[in-house]
Amino acid sequence: MVESTKKDLQIFGTRAIIEAIQAGKEIDKVFLQKGLHNPLLSELNTLIKKNGVQTSHVPIEKLNKLTQQNHQGAIAVVSAISYYDFEELVNAVVETEAAPLFILLDQLSDVRNFGAIIRTAECTGVHGIIIPKKGGAPVNGVAIKTSAGAAFNIPIAKVDHIKDAIYYLQGSGVQVVAATEKTDTTLFETDFTPPTAIVMGREDSGVSPGVLKIVDKQAKLPLKGSIASLNVSVACGAFLYEIVRQRS
Amino acid sequence: MVESTKKDLQIFGTRAIIEAIQAGKEIDKVFLQKGLHNPLLSELNTLIKKNGVQTSHVPIEKLNKLTQQNHQGAIAVVSAISYYDFEELVNAVVETEAAPLFILLDQLSDVRNFGAIIRTAECTGVHGIIIPKKGGAPVNGVAIKTSAGAAFNIPIAKVDHIKDAIYYLQGSGVQVVAATEKTDTTLFETDFTPPTAIVMGREDSGVSPGVLKIVDKQAKLPLKGSIASLNVSVACGAFLYEIVRQRS
Repeated sequence: MVESTKKDLQIFGTRAIIEAIQAGKEIDKVFLQKGLHNPLLSELNTLIKKNGVQTSHVPIEKLNKLTQQNHQGAIAVVSAISYYDFEELVNAVVETEAAPLFILLDQLSDVRNFGAIIRTAECTGVHGIIIPKKGGAPVNGVAIKTSAGAAFNIPIAKVDHIKDAIYYLQGSGVQVVAATEKTDTTLFETDFTPPTAIVMGREDSGVSPGVLKIVDKQAKLPLKGSIASLNVSVACGAFLYEIVRQRS
Repeated sequence: MVESTKKDLQIFGTRAIIEAIQAGKEIDKVFLQKGLHNPLLSELNTLIKKNGVQTSHVPIEKLNKLTQQNHQGAIAVVSAISYYDFEELVNAVVETEAAPLFILLDQLSDVRNFGAIIRTAECTGVHGIIIPKKGGAPVNGVAIKTSAGAAFNIPIAKVDHIKDAIYYLQGSGVQVVAATEKTDTTLFETDFTPPTAIVMGREDSGVSPGVLKIVDKQAKLPLKGSIASLNVSVACGAFLYEIVRQRS
């Protein structure tokens, strides 16, 4: 059974969720009733693991709050946006665009920052945003609202591992540049005219060390003052407009 | 009587507030008890009008919630930050800095955007932020938190009228550039190497028409996509980093 709510679309009932996943429907998260076990749920759990769907085990009261329908101990929240297949997106952009531009978000945690980045990306002609399936801020109602609706207009792809996405981009002739303070090279000294993917990191810790090791270039925003820390969506905007400048 | 609270410093009692205003203490807002009248309150009201202090008339219950002290129908909230005198700030910066840089906020309404702009300004070496006494977002707890503490490190000055501030800056040899979509000139085509003040406008309506008429230059961020609307703090960051680039 499928029901539209104010914020998200919900699918409830174990069988319905199984069919939705098998049909390739984009599921943001499945809420499962704590302690409940039956053969259908086992089948669903196998499918969830296979497809890397996020889950949350909650008391039945929480499920009853989410819907008044007969949920049978399982509710799936369907994403409000349709995600693109990562490899198809990269291939299509590299084939058709003169100067491909991607953003990779490495474990960004704040949905408002995520929404603001989506908004700026749409305004600067970014061809796709790549996010990890697990651990990052979700494209939820707040993110979509903060994006001013841009989340519906720009391709977003989810990947299992950001590192694999970087290797794939590099193999497709796209240079990968990490936005990081851990370098002496400023963005102004970096050539963004070739096909480029920018990696933005976590609000607190920045781009992860493992990712920094495999990127092609590192670039920083010069910082004055004593705070020496920019909001990640502002930093992303400064990078994107430097790219717009260099390419115009 | 003066008492420090978690967020703000409060002054309560009519006489104490009168003395604070006369002593030049920065008051964010005075809460006055609805329907209360007495000679001291009349004196306070006269002083409030003369100094353009913001007020709010509230029921006694609200005042009792703000403090358990004897407030006599009047509580003033003192700003957590010290404001600079506008003309002194401009004079000092123009005299000592090789390339003065100011931001004028023309009726910005969102405290998070305000905080984000303060943060970016501190990181890009802005010498002062100029805000209107009335109608703009206040430097409150949320703004300070969003600024990551930068509000304590960068001079902020309040002015009665943004237009008068613009005339004063122009008279001091500072070019005033409005960030606006209502021009064909991009920020990349604009020379920011002279002493400069950037005007950022309201989230919804941008820089007001009266201000646009008197600025020296107008500059826009090129916009692609269909949303065609950037978050004001992201836009401000893109302007500030273009200025950093041109001056480096």
